[in-house]
Amino acid sequence: MIGGAEYRAVRAATIGLVEPLTAEDMMVQASPDVSPPKWHLAHTTWFFERFILAEVFPGRTVHHPQYDYIFNSYYEAVGKRHPRPARGILSRPSVAEVREYRRAIDEEMSALLEKGGLSEWPGMPERVELGLHHEQQHQELLLMDIKRSFFENPLRPAYFSGAGEAAGKQARALSWREYSGGLVEIGHRGDRFSFDNELPAHRVYLEPFQLADRAVTSGEYLEFIEDGGYRRPELWLSDGWAAVGEGTLGAPLYWEQIDGAWMEFTLAGNVPLELAAPVSHVSFYEADAYARWANARLPTEAEWEAAATGENVRGNFVENGTLRPEPTRGNEAQLFGDVWELTASAYLPYPGFRPAPGAVGEYNGKFMSNQIVLRGGSCLTPRSHLRASYRNFFYPAQRWCCQGLRLAR
Amino acid sequence: MIGGAEYRAVRAATIGLVEPLTAEDMMVQASPDVSPPKWHLAHTTWFFERFILAEVFPGRTVHHPQYDYIFNSYYEAVGKRHPRPARGILSRPSVAEVREYRRAIDEEMSALLEKGGLSEWPGMPERVELGLHHEQQHQELLLMDIKRSFFENPLRPAYFSGAGEAAGKQARALSWREYSGGLVEIGHRGDRFSFDNELPAHRVYLEPFQLADRAVTSGEYLEFIEDGGYRRPELWLSDGWAAVGEGTLGAPLYWEQIDGAWMEFTLAGNVPLELAAPVSHVSFYEADAYARWANARLPTEAEWEAAATGENVRGNFVENGTLRPEPTRGNEAQLFGDVWELTASAYLPYPGFRPAPGAVGEYNGKFMSNQIVLRGGSCLTPRSHLRASYRNFFYPAQRWCCQGLRLAR
Amino acid sequence: MIGGAEYRAVRAATIGLVEPLTAEDMMVQASPDVSPPKWHLAHTTWFFERFILAEVFPGRTVHHPQYDYIFNSYYEAVGKRHPRPARGILSRPSVAEVREYRRAIDEEMSALLEKGGLSEWPGMPERVELGLHHEQQHQELLLMDIKRSFFENPLRPAYFSGAGEAAGKQARALSWREYSGGLVEIGHRGDRFSFDNELPAHRVYLEPFQLADRAVTSGEYLEFIEDGGYRRPELWLSDGWAAVGEGTLGAPLYWEQIDGAWMEFTLAGNVPLELAAPVSHVSFYEADAYARWANARLPTEAEWEAAATGENVRGNFVENGTLRPEPTRGNEAQLFGDVWELTASAYLPYPGFRPAPGAVGEYNGKFMSNQIVLRGGSCLTPRSHLRASYRNFFYPAQRWCCQGLRLAR
Amino acid sequence: MIGGAEYRAVRAATIGLVEPLTAEDMMVQASPDVSPPKWHLAHTTWFFERFILAEVFPGRTVHHPQYDYIFNSYYEAVGKRHPRPARGILSRPSVAEVREYRRAIDEEMSALLEKGGLSEWPGMPERVELGLHHEQQHQELLLMDIKRSFFENPLRPAYFSGAGEAAGKQARALSWREYSGGLVEIGHRGDRFSFDNELPAHRVYLEPFQLADRAVTSGEYLEFIEDGGYRRPELWLSDGWAAVGEGTLGAPLYWEQIDGAWMEFTLAGNVPLELAAPVSHVSFYEADAYARWANARLPTEAEWEAAATGENVRGNFVENGTLRPEPTRGNEAQLFGDVWELTASAYLPYPGFRPAPGAVGEYNGKFMSNQIVLRGGSCLTPRSHLRASYRNFFYPAQRWCCQGLRLAR
Repeated sequence: MIGGAEYRAVRAATIGLVEPLTAEDMMVQASPDVSPPKWHLAHTTWFFERFILAEVFPGRTVHHPQYDYIFNSYYEAVGKRHPRPARGILSRPSVAEVREYRRAIDEEMSALLEKGGLSEWPGMPERVELGLHHEQQHQELLLMDIKRSFFENPLRPAYFSGAGEAAGKQARALSWREYSGGLVEIGHRGDRFSFDNELPAHRVYLEPFQLADRAVTSGEYLEFIEDGGYRRPELWLSDGWAAVGEGTLGAPLYWEQIDGAWMEFTLAGNVPLELAAPVSHVSFYEADAYARWANARLPTEAEWEAAATGENVRGNFVENGTLRPEPTRGNEAQLFGDVWELTASAYLPYPGFRPAPGAVGEYNGKFMSNQIVLRGGSCLTPRSHLRASYRNFFYPAQRWCCQGLRLAR
Repeated sequence: MIGGAEYRAVRAATIGLVEPLTAEDMMVQASPDVSPPKWHLAHTTWFFERFILAEVFPGRTVHHPQYDYIFNSYYEAVGKRHPRPARGILSRPSVAEVREYRRAIDEEMSALLEKGGLSEWPGMPERVELGLHHEQQHQELLLMDIKRSFFENPLRPAYFSGAGEAAGKQARALSWREYSGGLVEIGHRGDRFSFDNELPAHRVYLEPFQLADRAVTSGEYLEFIEDGGYRRPELWLSDGWAAVGEGTLGAPLYWEQIDGAWMEFTLAGNVPLELAAPVSHVSFYEADAYARWANARLPTEAEWEAAATGENVRGNFVENGTLRPEPTRGNEAQLFGDVWELTASAYLPYPGFRPAPGAVGEYNGKFMSNQIVLRGGSCLTPRSHLRASYRNFFYPAQRWCCQGLRLAR
Repeated sequence: MIGGAEYRAVRAATIGLVEPLTAEDMMVQASPDVSPPKWHLAHTTWFFERFILAEVFPGRTVHHPQYDYIFNSYYEAVGKRHPRPARGILSRPSVAEVREYRRAIDEEMSALLEKGGLSEWPGMPERVELGLHHEQQHQELLLMDIKRSFFENPLRPAYFSGAGEAAGKQARALSWREYSGGLVEIGHRGDRFSFDNELPAHRVYLEPFQLADRAVTSGEYLEFIEDGGYRRPELWLSDGWAAVGEGTLGAPLYWEQIDGAWMEFTLAGNVPLELAAPVSHVSFYEADAYARWANARLPTEAEWEAAATGENVRGNFVENGTLRPEPTRGNEAQLFGDVWELTASAYLPYPGFRPAPGAVGEYNGKFMSNQIVLRGGSCLTPRSHLRASYRNFFYPAQRWCCQGLRLAR
Repeated sequence: MIGGAEYRAVRAATIGLVEPLTAEDMMVQASPDVSPPKWHLAHTTWFFERFILAEVFPGRTVHHPQYDYIFNSYYEAVGKRHPRPARGILSRPSVAEVREYRRAIDEEMSALLEKGGLSEWPGMPERVELGLHHEQQHQELLLMDIKRSFFENPLRPAYFSGAGEAAGKQARALSWREYSGGLVEIGHRGDRFSFDNELPAHRVYLEPFQLADRAVTSGEYLEFIEDGGYRRPELWLSDGWAAVGEGTLGAPLYWEQIDGAWMEFTLAGNVPLELAAPVSHVSFYEADAYARWANARLPTEAEWEAAATGENVRGNFVENGTLRPEPTRGNEAQLFGDVWELTASAYLPYPGFRPAPGAVGEYNGKFMSNQIVLRGGSCLTPRSHLRASYRNFFYPAQRWCCQGLRLAR
């Protein structure tokens, strides 16, 4: 059961992430996909207030009568909401008010957790755990979002000063690992936390397959561009080619050619493209086209999970502090960290999937159409948040997640 | 190998379908999804000219130098195209010119087929067979499209006079059939024709499941509406609820409430809603919401195919002549005909799928994202066109196909 | 008072215009601005049925109960309407039905006019006259619209075979005519027909001004293009430059550069650009930019009318049969015919303007915002339709009217 | 000639306006029409740097190399610009940096002005004067914009605490003033500052007319609403009715009905509707419809100016401090202050108008299409900024300016 210390540690990590930001940065929303940092701070707090405190103490006075309206993300069961693309116009409540909101709710939560009280309420200890994993998801989103917003600013501000470049590093030559397939089990099993979309564990039949032992690098992806990858319709899915044709695609999201040199926008600002590091911020369509060009394909999520099961969750996570993908190291398969790996699998319910009852049942299940599964976590993900059965998901055209690809065949 | 008589029979069936249409009907395109009947006549002809005659006789003079531009549907390898939503502005070439185009190409094709000549060209007999299955797909599209276009006309014209209503018929009580699942094979195997997207046959593992022994009826769907189905977000996928929220959904596509009575637009015009017949023209989102309301789910395409394999392809197809779904008859499972059945499966490549080389490789493979698989054929499908492994596909919001649903659990 | 013969002559002229069209051409609507020829035939007929027959005989059975819905253009007082951009999907009623509609209403109208009966109903003789001027406006629209729709067809069909080109003609050197200005009267005065928007006649004060003695030619406009006219923001109004910036403007509407040669689409198909003829199908923004480039300006409508008052209404009108602007002839100022001349004046009510009571009061008055006045008629206008006080009007970005410009300073 | 003290006073007034704002408020842009307060601070500063310092000292190092890009509003001659609707995503430069930018430029400007130096540069003293009038325009915009942005926030923040309501006040009964019209002169004449769009002074001929002696009140406008004003198409211009039909209009911009009572959003937050005060934040379409309903019309700008010429510029301006329109006082015509008065006149060049050469020539002239003239200033306008010949202009659908109407007939 989650204790007060663990609660406070996760909550404090969120606050740590906004330390480099000005009050104005806390309000920026440069794309409808992203939310202002201030909104993340408040929404994650609201999650604990609304789904724990309000349920445990039915008569409790809410912190602010309109926070249900402005800090609800997508819970229809809670009611109507401030429109997502307009989160960036909320100059009030101020950062100071939001910090006070966090402090007040944390105080209530801590008190409850210290006296062990939540064990009296069935389901609530699990709900706290869900709230902390939810908080971790927003930690990653916060970094994704500030990068996206800063990128729209012609001044290209830096979130932090960053480490030096890994100049001259070379990517390890790609080699293939063999997997025998057959009837394998995927999905989560056991007592530790998982999201409902990882359940139930079930069997799938796989043909024998191979996976590359590392992600595709920026250098490799650059070869694809230079070989006319974005101009050859035969490499693309029809929906992806439509996007290319409308002129929205020509390189990964954060790449820019400046005076003939390829630069890449990172949380440390614009830096020369790191050829040896995994390519990141490509859409599913781009990943799929690259794989076809490379005479390979993307792995299915079942193949990925079959390969990852039993591996240590080890790699370049947010704790590493560089906040960008790094050139391959050692000779591990490196399935975890660096970049979320796009799969060939649509995000669909596992056989027998049932969402939780009530509003939190909206957490994952209702998004099971039109999206693509990603696996393995990224350099912006807290390490403790990840596991082999973890299913992340985005629309196939989205690119602001730190996501890349690994080839299969 | 396809002979001249078989070729001419399929081609003549297309012409038969446009007999009830005026010259102006031949040009109507009331929605970007649909194409004018005249365009279908020309495009299917162009398919034979471009993919058979032009490849067999490289120096041959084309029928018209701009037909590659105006009658190419989506083959990037052929070149740029007239925009699909603007097909309805092509008042020229006239119907008479398009009929002459068909006559000329049919004459060339017949001559080739009569003298058995195509066997000299590797791959071409198969290409003729593909062309005829392509023609059959457009036969169904032509009926789907004219219904869609006529529905937009406030006069609600009828394509044909239709049969009387099946007034008073009752739908058979729904019962469940048990399937044991396990490791089953799906996909096409054998020498008969299939599309490339049905290949290769492969194994999948299924949990035991149940399928309803008939499709959901309009009467049952009406209960869902009357129970507030379109106003309860907890029943809907998020993307579907967004569509409902924008006011575009409140009933199946062709339903209208007129003076308090539910009417349904059919190819015979507006008729009272047939409660006992399968509901049709619902989107994937609506089908999914209905299934959740009914405490069930949609079947996967693998479940559907496992159930259909070995069944006779028998049911209410286009040859039946009523051109609308009909109340259940007898006690068969009726997996074929009446309505295409929406599945829970995203349209994705089978393990080991490879599209054909060249332009015809664009036929199916490049559409393998964002779409949903439908199975079983409808009352607008030629019976000879169908088989258990057949995979049809549409976007989840589309509804102009004659499609419904069968429950699973 | 209008007699039966005059009525029939105007009505027959409309039918004469559609003789070259196929049934499919009668339905084409390639842009939301235009209407299908068939719709023009029906709408002008509906105008007589709705605003004369229905008012004269209150109990009369309408020709078709839904024609008020589908053939009402914009009369709010009549009720809801079929959406304008969707007129092109009305494959029914057929051309034959619409012709029968015209025949039936013409029979009723003729009978009324022959027996002089309309003089019994106050206001109705004037309404018939309005109906015939309305019919003439749609004669011009019909030609404008079919040209616009044919232009969207990659086959570039011709409406008629046309006259040969005026190869080698030279435009007369432009000279300036002086006008003294002062307090002048503009607007319509007298017993002959005018639209309400020409009333009341009133005084305006004008500074002395000069007008060019002919319209700007295509040759002159080409110099503007070749001098970078479309790439120099200092020449443009802000709203016009926004349109240029979005890539929608780079030449007059119907100009195309084919293999290096400028071609112009006409009702006789694509022909080499006639340099000596007035430039046509430029927007107000383009005309304004050209004038600034030429160190001049557009005339106001009051200046134009002051210059035109007392001049003979003589020039290249539709009766001339070439259906395109022609090189300057003789030494007249040629204020009438060839091209409608864009003015610098917003379309606003004259001081003391009052629209007619009832639905026909919507004819002109409600459009008095955001539009620009054009003067003088074009090669598509019936000569008898024009007069010096006539005010035509379009939005500043529209170009499908046969419109050009004359310089002032 | 402008001295340093005058310069600093106007500049300081701008800073005074942002005192109540938080750093986050300084970045808010809740509609594409408005700009963030921080942007106003920087843009007005950039105006002095770019159009005075950079021209006076050609070799001078700019304050920041990208400020030409991000703080240029619409000067094409200066170059490309950050997109206007995305000004709200510029979290950097920070408020502190922008304040430092103001300080640095003010220091340079003050030094120049103190030593009288600008008299050496022809045109520059006038340019300074233009810059200060420009600054005053942005002072009004800043208040308009923060009101607009705060209104989008569901918390409805207040900019200041405001004065109490004028509860129970009654509007004076409306009476009509007679004006004889005839040949009058409008436009600016004399040595004092005016914008170029007020030039040249020129004669216009006016019919005799009447003007109401005060603006239309909120109470009167409420009667229009309650009489079905927004549901009667015969009252509306066609373009206005289209806007109503799309559901975007039903009351003035800031009115809300809360629990049955009409409330009005002001810079002091939501307050009960002040029936006796001039109605504000109505579009040209609404003003025009109201006037038609009241059996009157809007005045032309020439009528308005003829009436205002010679009147004292006296009324409820920004210095008054209530920042909202107030009930009528005394028995003056009150042509100035409270609300900008919408006229019936399109914003067009005066006869003989010539914009200034160079980039500042873009200040007014290029906007002379599609917009409507407003006259008289509002409760947000600095009093010293106004004069009888002043021409303000907005698009007919825009409403965020504090604008109302006065009847004419």
